[in-house]
Amino acid sequence: MLIIGELINTSRKKIGEAVQAGDIQYLQQVAKDQVEAGAHVLDVNCGTIIGKEPETLEWLVKLVQEVVDVPLCLDSPDPVALERALQAHKGTAMINSISLEKERYEAILPLLKGTDCSVVALCMDDKGMPENVEQGVELASRLVDGLGEEGVDPDRIYLDPLVRSVGTGPHYGIMFLETVKAIKEKYPTVHITCGLSNISFGLPQRRLLNRTFLVMAMAAGMDSAIMDPLDKVIMAHLYAARAVLGQDEFCADYITAQREGKLEV
Amino acid sequence: MLIIGELINTSRKKIGEAVQAGDIQYLQQVAKDQVEAGAHVLDVNCGTIIGKEPETLEWLVKLVQEVVDVPLCLDSPDPVALERALQAHKGTAMINSISLEKERYEAILPLLKGTDCSVVALCMDDKGMPENVEQGVELASRLVDGLGEEGVDPDRIYLDPLVRSVGTGPHYGIMFLETVKAIKEKYPTVHITCGLSNISFGLPQRRLLNRTFLVMAMAAGMDSAIMDPLDKVIMAHLYAARAVLGQDEFCADYITAQREGKLEV
Repeated sequence: MLIIGELINTSRKKIGEAVQAGDIQYLQQVAKDQVEAGAHVLDVNCGTIIGKEPETLEWLVKLVQEVVDVPLCLDSPDPVALERALQAHKGTAMINSISLEKERYEAILPLLKGTDCSVVALCMDDKGMPENVEQGVELASRLVDGLGEEGVDPDRIYLDPLVRSVGTGPHYGIMFLETVKAIKEKYPTVHITCGLSNISFGLPQRRLLNRTFLVMAMAAGMDSAIMDPLDKVIMAHLYAARAVLGQDEFCADYITAQREGKLEV
Repeated sequence: MLIIGELINTSRKKIGEAVQAGDIQYLQQVAKDQVEAGAHVLDVNCGTIIGKEPETLEWLVKLVQEVVDVPLCLDSPDPVALERALQAHKGTAMINSISLEKERYEAILPLLKGTDCSVVALCMDDKGMPENVEQGVELASRLVDGLGEEGVDPDRIYLDPLVRSVGTGPHYGIMFLETVKAIKEKYPTVHITCGLSNISFGLPQRRLLNRTFLVMAMAAGMDSAIMDPLDKVIMAHLYAARAVLGQDEFCADYITAQREGKLEV
């Protein structure tokens, strides 16, 4: 289960303020805290810094990699910002994201070719997001097959079938889970990720819904999530889910987490 | 989702003491509390009262039905105790349990024939419990087909595929989930239930594992559980799981539960 820490995103008030103020120490602390809490990759997103996204993303990449050893997930729709961030990045980055939207696909693809970068691939095209499982699998197939033809193997692809709130459509939860199962059946080596918290948009007690959904999605075959690793409760459920799903032989990680006080929620 | 409240069981210390002391008021309070918390059926089990199980079970049925209007799940391997409890029971009871063990099957079957009772059916025979999904489905099929020939329709059957701890075998969680899916595919109208808490036997933070497993099992198609409805956290996850799975149109029950303070966990 690849945990992509989502906190370094300027759409979060404190992060936005820290970036504006050049508060390197705070940003580096958020990076260290996420890795300490179990993140394997850190997302960096400064999409709200209008007009200065490329240089800001590069700056973020450098300051974060000064203090942590994990790869970063370079999160922008802007190929210029991504290219600059990629040049600054040490090691093999993850790019967030490509999709089947024509303009985006053509702009992002060159950044992937000839590299080992992995990529988050959104299951949507210029017609929009899927409305049923069949459409979701069809979009996923076009991404995996299309990227494959360009030399990007399935195990570098983190498909995001796109989560929408069950508050706006009661079928969106089950549709996501069924889509994950169908994709993993068709492409066993492709990865599945998502932005978990969309499931609860507009509803109360969002974290309760988010962790419930995480556990179900892991059982369906999702093997990555873009999430808040500092949310101790969701992390405890992640340990528990790995134990229940037999992904944690002899429950060794679960028992270690218990000893470290990480399961007391 | 049919919630079978598990608390009235003399293997629980306080219940055992209350039964021994004839503390009707306490036992009735536990019954009322469980129904108030959302139980649709109450399990009654006095298997630890050696030599006096039939009269004690009858006594329990009567005192519980004095204060709550839900059906009871008469829980005993002893056909004599079950028959006596059935005679005392008002309305349509649930019998817990039949299995493919020859002696048990032949003793319990007559209690079901010619009644509307539903029945918990354990997926095991004289050779023991299933060790893989195929065996679980085969045992389930023999139960559903065999009971069907005797006039017990699938919608009266609550199959229990038997939960074992992931502490003793890392495959037991995923095996249960896959068995549930396969059974529901083969018999869409049969119900699935289980004793949830077996999943965590011998492991720390059992309630965390239990609620994680509940949520996954619901996503796999389980539509009943024998559980503690007074565990506020597991009940909150049950509300959340129904919302995520589209079983709670417009999240109406979830939002009502929030207003009633039931989701603050």
